[in-house]
Amino acid sequence: MFDIDSLDRLDKPNEECGIIGVHSKGSQAARKAYFGLFALQHRGQESSGIASAEGDKVHYHKAMGLVSQIYNEAVLKELPGDMAIGHNRYSTTGDSSPRNAAPHVIDTLDGMLAVAHNGNITNAADLRKDLLARGIGLVTTTDSELLTLLLAMPVVGGATAGDPVLTRLKHLQAVAQGAYSLLVLTPKAIYATRDALGLRPLCLGIAKGEDGAPMHVVASESCALQPVGATFVRDIQAGEIVRIDDAGVTVLQAGVAEKPKALCVFEYVYFARPDSTIEARSVNTVRQEMGRKLWAQAPVDADVVVGVPDSAIPCALGLAQASGIPYVEGLTKNRYIGRTFIQPDDALRKLGVKLKFTALSDNIAGKRVILVDDSIVRGNTVAPLIALVREAGAKEVHVRVSSPPIKHPCFMGVDMASRQEMIANRFNEQDIAAHVGADSLVYLNVNVMEQSVQSCGKNGAAKVGLCNACFTGSYPLSLPAGPNGFEGFVSGCESLPT
Amino acid sequence: MFDIDSLDRLDKPNEECGIIGVHSKGSQAARKAYFGLFALQHRGQESSGIASAEGDKVHYHKAMGLVSQIYNEAVLKELPGDMAIGHNRYSTTGDSSPRNAAPHVIDTLDGMLAVAHNGNITNAADLRKDLLARGIGLVTTTDSELLTLLLAMPVVGGATAGDPVLTRLKHLQAVAQGAYSLLVLTPKAIYATRDALGLRPLCLGIAKGEDGAPMHVVASESCALQPVGATFVRDIQAGEIVRIDDAGVTVLQAGVAEKPKALCVFEYVYFARPDSTIEARSVNTVRQEMGRKLWAQAPVDADVVVGVPDSAIPCALGLAQASGIPYVEGLTKNRYIGRTFIQPDDALRKLGVKLKFTALSDNIAGKRVILVDDSIVRGNTVAPLIALVREAGAKEVHVRVSSPPIKHPCFMGVDMASRQEMIANRFNEQDIAAHVGADSLVYLNVNVMEQSVQSCGKNGAAKVGLCNACFTGSYPLSLPAGPNGFEGFVSGCESLPT
Amino acid sequence: MFDIDSLDRLDKPNEECGIIGVHSKGSQAARKAYFGLFALQHRGQESSGIASAEGDKVHYHKAMGLVSQIYNEAVLKELPGDMAIGHNRYSTTGDSSPRNAAPHVIDTLDGMLAVAHNGNITNAADLRKDLLARGIGLVTTTDSELLTLLLAMPVVGGATAGDPVLTRLKHLQAVAQGAYSLLVLTPKAIYATRDALGLRPLCLGIAKGEDGAPMHVVASESCALQPVGATFVRDIQAGEIVRIDDAGVTVLQAGVAEKPKALCVFEYVYFARPDSTIEARSVNTVRQEMGRKLWAQAPVDADVVVGVPDSAIPCALGLAQASGIPYVEGLTKNRYIGRTFIQPDDALRKLGVKLKFTALSDNIAGKRVILVDDSIVRGNTVAPLIALVREAGAKEVHVRVSSPPIKHPCFMGVDMASRQEMIANRFNEQDIAAHVGADSLVYLNVNVMEQSVQSCGKNGAAKVGLCNACFTGSYPLSLPAGPNGFEGFVSGCESLPT
Amino acid sequence: MFDIDSLDRLDKPNEECGIIGVHSKGSQAARKAYFGLFALQHRGQESSGIASAEGDKVHYHKAMGLVSQIYNEAVLKELPGDMAIGHNRYSTTGDSSPRNAAPHVIDTLDGMLAVAHNGNITNAADLRKDLLARGIGLVTTTDSELLTLLLAMPVVGGATAGDPVLTRLKHLQAVAQGAYSLLVLTPKAIYATRDALGLRPLCLGIAKGEDGAPMHVVASESCALQPVGATFVRDIQAGEIVRIDDAGVTVLQAGVAEKPKALCVFEYVYFARPDSTIEARSVNTVRQEMGRKLWAQAPVDADVVVGVPDSAIPCALGLAQASGIPYVEGLTKNRYIGRTFIQPDDALRKLGVKLKFTALSDNIAGKRVILVDDSIVRGNTVAPLIALVREAGAKEVHVRVSSPPIKHPCFMGVDMASRQEMIANRFNEQDIAAHVGADSLVYLNVNVMEQSVQSCGKNGAAKVGLCNACFTGSYPLSLPAGPNGFEGFVSGCESLPT
Repeated sequence: MFDIDSLDRLDKPNEECGIIGVHSKGSQAARKAYFGLFALQHRGQESSGIASAEGDKVHYHKAMGLVSQIYNEAVLKELPGDMAIGHNRYSTTGDSSPRNAAPHVIDTLDGMLAVAHNGNITNAADLRKDLLARGIGLVTTTDSELLTLLLAMPVVGGATAGDPVLTRLKHLQAVAQGAYSLLVLTPKAIYATRDALGLRPLCLGIAKGEDGAPMHVVASESCALQPVGATFVRDIQAGEIVRIDDAGVTVLQAGVAEKPKALCVFEYVYFARPDSTIEARSVNTVRQEMGRKLWAQAPVDADVVVGVPDSAIPCALGLAQASGIPYVEGLTKNRYIGRTFIQPDDALRKLGVKLKFTALSDNIAGKRVILVDDSIVRGNTVAPLIALVREAGAKEVHVRVSSPPIKHPCFMGVDMASRQEMIANRFNEQDIAAHVGADSLVYLNVNVMEQSVQSCGKNGAAKVGLCNACFTGSYPLSLPAGPNGFEGFVSGCESLPT
Repeated sequence: MFDIDSLDRLDKPNEECGIIGVHSKGSQAARKAYFGLFALQHRGQESSGIASAEGDKVHYHKAMGLVSQIYNEAVLKELPGDMAIGHNRYSTTGDSSPRNAAPHVIDTLDGMLAVAHNGNITNAADLRKDLLARGIGLVTTTDSELLTLLLAMPVVGGATAGDPVLTRLKHLQAVAQGAYSLLVLTPKAIYATRDALGLRPLCLGIAKGEDGAPMHVVASESCALQPVGATFVRDIQAGEIVRIDDAGVTVLQAGVAEKPKALCVFEYVYFARPDSTIEARSVNTVRQEMGRKLWAQAPVDADVVVGVPDSAIPCALGLAQASGIPYVEGLTKNRYIGRTFIQPDDALRKLGVKLKFTALSDNIAGKRVILVDDSIVRGNTVAPLIALVREAGAKEVHVRVSSPPIKHPCFMGVDMASRQEMIANRFNEQDIAAHVGADSLVYLNVNVMEQSVQSCGKNGAAKVGLCNACFTGSYPLSLPAGPNGFEGFVSGCESLPT
Repeated sequence: MFDIDSLDRLDKPNEECGIIGVHSKGSQAARKAYFGLFALQHRGQESSGIASAEGDKVHYHKAMGLVSQIYNEAVLKELPGDMAIGHNRYSTTGDSSPRNAAPHVIDTLDGMLAVAHNGNITNAADLRKDLLARGIGLVTTTDSELLTLLLAMPVVGGATAGDPVLTRLKHLQAVAQGAYSLLVLTPKAIYATRDALGLRPLCLGIAKGEDGAPMHVVASESCALQPVGATFVRDIQAGEIVRIDDAGVTVLQAGVAEKPKALCVFEYVYFARPDSTIEARSVNTVRQEMGRKLWAQAPVDADVVVGVPDSAIPCALGLAQASGIPYVEGLTKNRYIGRTFIQPDDALRKLGVKLKFTALSDNIAGKRVILVDDSIVRGNTVAPLIALVREAGAKEVHVRVSSPPIKHPCFMGVDMASRQEMIANRFNEQDIAAHVGADSLVYLNVNVMEQSVQSCGKNGAAKVGLCNACFTGSYPLSLPAGPNGFEGFVSGCESLPT
Repeated sequence: MFDIDSLDRLDKPNEECGIIGVHSKGSQAARKAYFGLFALQHRGQESSGIASAEGDKVHYHKAMGLVSQIYNEAVLKELPGDMAIGHNRYSTTGDSSPRNAAPHVIDTLDGMLAVAHNGNITNAADLRKDLLARGIGLVTTTDSELLTLLLAMPVVGGATAGDPVLTRLKHLQAVAQGAYSLLVLTPKAIYATRDALGLRPLCLGIAKGEDGAPMHVVASESCALQPVGATFVRDIQAGEIVRIDDAGVTVLQAGVAEKPKALCVFEYVYFARPDSTIEARSVNTVRQEMGRKLWAQAPVDADVVVGVPDSAIPCALGLAQASGIPYVEGLTKNRYIGRTFIQPDDALRKLGVKLKFTALSDNIAGKRVILVDDSIVRGNTVAPLIALVREAGAKEVHVRVSSPPIKHPCFMGVDMASRQEMIANRFNEQDIAAHVGADSLVYLNVNVMEQSVQSCGKNGAAKVGLCNACFTGSYPLSLPAGPNGFEGFVSGCESLPT
């Protein structure tokens, strides 16, 4: 199978998952979760699942494919109850299997648990060995199964005074290192938590439910709130544990700080939808600001500004605004190209990005073009895009990238190329320009990127700690060394041997 | 089944089909047609089919669904040969059936014929009666089957001097009235023709084939040429008949004029992809010009210009450019929402366009917004969009529409609302504004629209005759009267009783 | 795809189709037809379809696969009305296509017609040429489409005095030669007819309908009546035309004789289910009688009688009864082996019939076995079966076949081997025994076979004319000569070039 | 979904699973396992799965449906290696879920384990509680998952002297009570074991492999050996543990006795295929003997003997042989009726067994019929069968059942009715006859049944201990008492709350 759709995604960092939880007294939560999953589809297209709770039971359905393909009335009928969590999973190459689909559901001494997880556990290999050594067999190779079994492992028993799921979540926080935004569904409540660094986002929304009672929603991004009919309340804090049930939202454990210490900056750069607001910063506004600052950092004489659709458009608009150079649509993206089941023959490979992008010649012929993209990993997409723009008649092509050179792999859940594949580890900025055929090529300075995010905080929002490790190599947490140091580190999520 | 995707399409005129033909000596034509169909997916999402010719045989495969779902290596393997035609069919409500999928393939005295057709026959009811009266049974309710049987009907026999398919096509032209761009595949050649008014587009492209021999492509739009590796040569003329075979392109019958007399103006307004060029006018350029002229026609004090994605963006950019008011992204469209198999309950209906569009509050809060859309049919989409923009904080919303009020149904193949449903038949411009909640609402004047198209001709291109009947009621051909005059006329394509 | 199931069918003559029609005032006819198709599944496993009539409309659904796979509540919901016809189609190698599935539905001057057909037209090639010469395009390569278009062709028009479908059926009878049992459904009635020789069976049943009104059923075999809740009334006569509607059963044209002149004898030998009664002969009783007469014709010293399951069991029981030699189960057939999608590798080929049959060693070890089969075409199944029986310990294997040597192809709808492949054209009886490894092998004498059928008539039933052409070469109708005489004749049904 | 096929199975005890393991040096084991699963399809039609081992990896595929539907070349391609185990699962009502499909595969300290299991654990509820109390989360409600996690639980570690899987299996034997025949696949070997009572069968076969090395097969029944090309060697002994690897078959732990102490007698009565040999008794021979003894126990004046197809045929033949009364085919079973997706309306319920069985009137009209069936649970199938036979003209119907009255539920893996539903708990033999409409009805005496089995031992085979608990209530192992004694006992396999 050849994923034409991936022709551009291939050269992007890739996010793992999108999660949503809905408590809607008096109406079917799974149906609402379903609409939320639609809005989070960009965070994972491999598989999707929903678990719902009704009475003492937890029901679930998960399958390979897109949200629109997986759910229908018959499926939703099997997901009754007024609480539900949902999960979209991202497809990495090679270990795409129905058994890795989430949520994971498990029976424990305290009843059923369903777990939806976004992130990556950095000590997964150790945790895995530990579980096996305790005689706990493992079925999948995912972090999510590890987390689920960790939640089952502490022998709690419902009879103790406190909330047994809280005990389990604290145990998980104590032993699991890395990035996780986590939803747990039991027959009685939904629990939400985030890792202590706040690496992955998670937010809370509210709506008026069917019978006047409030409906609560937790979701990876605020863009999932509107389709569920909810409005944004606040972000879940790093390290915080909340319970959502008929009594409303209860903070079981306070967060470690008002703002995350190390939110993945790529949420602002590329992952999140522009209509999401993360930690009091509109993603769209941050991207526009990056465009403005990119212009300030590296102005160039040009006639038009073109953004690579869709993610680089806000940045291109910001740059156009700052520079006064007209923004035009210079590239069109075919909306219908998804996965194809055609073998990629030579002709197809040669066509490459031409299957997905077309240049709008009338807007760029004879023009000096500033081509704005949000990130470059290997550089194998930007080169043919530049060629396309030149074929359409552009006189000059100046590439501006709204993030710094990517030089270090992510161990917290983002799927990037290997260190060797990253073009920024093979060439300097100037050589990259020559390599991809650009007249000039400038990356956004890492400090300027940071400022772009900080400066967009609404209403005097506090500074948000950002993880810039893929640019700087300064990881926000210690990593277990592999045979070759970091290089040997195996991401627990996808690549353990089956 | 509820088509969330149709939430905005419902208030658009809807096109019928996209067609492509490929003659590629030495390589598999069906594979190339497949990539072309991807690029034409916007012209029909109900079903798709490819017929190919090899030796004396015509093979075909057609099925319901999207191009990406229908074809795979196994399917392509069954479509050998260096000639192929393909067809994407648009889904109208109610008569969506596998048996209506195209191309239609039929055996005749002169061998197999496959037919791919875009358009609508206005005398279909008469032709249908005539065929039945000749004892020819009909299987489907489509124009395409009618045309196919008309092509089979004249008793030609290969032994006569001339090209029997030419004879058949001339017979078809003599009896069939209406709109048609037509491709016919036989074991020996591909034939392409267009109706005498040139109502539907069709163009010719060329590429260097595998072994140096030229590869020829005919397609509904030029945007289908690039993914096939071809470049634009010219439009097929109205009434022209060409044959494409190993000898290249032969004009069997000259066109009736250099340019169509009545090309459907909605191709420029909405149907065609912006990266297509039709009759020497770049669709994108025409749309930008419409935006510029729309501003000239009805300027208004405002802070930002917002286009309804995706089709109205070029127009919004043109208007922004002309007015000097900044263009911003004010609405985001969910790329992943397609058909859903969920029953539309009240909650879903209430959510309405919110499932598909989100407002980017940061770009429009506190702003006076010019909201640009390309057309309004019933008005039931623009109203919730305006509400969405207001909820996001817009102080004023001024709607500008890049086409005139739609008041008359199309009988030439475009699926619109009934006369009664059209909002422009129920209210005047000012009342529509009040009705949909706009501070002002202005339609592009019909003459200005016409000028927008004409003025964009490249290199002194001749004037192109346009069909504006849905705005003016001046139909370019006589129509059979129904019981209530035009109102009773039944479009031959979709709505005959089964 | 490798059809393990065909491991034994490969060496059988193969029937084409099973048809059923139901008129059930006040209840859904399609649902009843569905149960009838289950009972007729042995007559065709490639595809199945049902057409139903309600008001002025004819609805239909047809698909590839088994009855149990094709229909469900959603499908039946789309088949409303109190009249329906159904069709099971047999799968021949190589032209298995959804477009050949039946019933064929077509619009005519007199409204919609659906046609279900069992048989083979011997002058199909001529009829085909004639239709093409009249300018009628053909979509499939089936007889059924030919017949359907022949029914549409005569220009009747409902205004004439008589029943237009009767006119159409008479026209069909006048021009079509060969074997056909035919059902036609219109919005007003079901019509049933049989060819003038009565080659293929068709019978009538009755039941008390929902509201006391009689329900009528026509079906290929009487075994389809019980699951529909009906009881046998009589066979439709050769050449007869009946109409079934709210007024009951009306004979529109009398049959040519009380009994068929040339009913295919293989219905008694192998095709029909043992619980069917055809022309006043119980199929099971005829098969038992064949066994008895087979013993009389060729007795042999033996210890046990074994039948090849399932079709030869009644014959084996008859032989056992006549001989006094005990009947035992010597071969078990795996009930679950159907089509497999595994490539037949060498190991699989070597296993051959062992995948389908097991010998019951305890019943045959050390025994002299009479192995009864109903027919031998190529002889490539009986050989490994004999080997299997010997491996299980049989001392001697005496094969008795309840039909004569097959030497001539059938042109009336039965799929057999080519003349060259037929083992009886390559060896005499004695050599065949040696060839397949039998101690003795005897075919039932053709006259004795004939007597077996005639002698089983109930209540002094008249003699039924039988077609024995595949044994004798005496075809009951003249056949168009091919380039090599009969050998060149192309069966119209399946093998016309596409 | 309505399972017409179950119309007769509903009144049978129902078996759970069929398992197979193949070690075939030099050829693909999964392909062979696939053919074995075909032969074991009667033991489970809900789902099927195969796990294979290659190098360090264990691959698996499992899905809902029949063997013929689940596997194809693409699936087999993903199952490489020369060792494989397979599993067919039986469908009970209500907990039919893909996640319950087997084999279960799990990672442990000693590497991957795949487990295929036939049987039922009687202390499952306790084991389940114990696992949960150890913090081991459970995903399914099956015994098989329990057994798999029990195998993972003991912390062994490959470094110890012995075979870690042997240690794990001994641990399982020490804690798990009930019935199990078990196959474990690791990257290095296949392990086979049986519970200490030998409740479920398991046998060993051998064949010459591709390269001359022996190929070994373990399977639930010997009927699975022939399609794999193997011949029977011996039964696995109760309590025995064997390892099969490149070194051949190694007995790691001897069995507790030559023959089982409590083999489920229903294997002989109904479950096993007649062509299987279990504990030196041919199933077919035992069934014939039961028929003979049934005649001796309760002779009756009659004209014909009829067996209910398929399982009661050998018994009917034995009875006919003993009595001298002719055996005839009196009932025909529709081979093609499987599951249907049609809602069972009143008409369907009324038709009942008529959809599945037809009476052959010619064989029974006017006759006194002995109708032989193998078992009666609720009695709701035998009644309409008797009615069917009477409608076909039988003068008298004498029912003979080749097993005793069923009065006690099975806790060792056989799915029967509840105590209250069992007809033998509601009526005595004579009243049952009246209730179902028989002229007489006699069950085989429990001692005579036992003798039938014992007397058929080949070559002086030792007596085999049989479990007759469902007839006698004497369970071969102590059962945990529920709230109402045994009645409250919950079978661990299927009915734990999800």
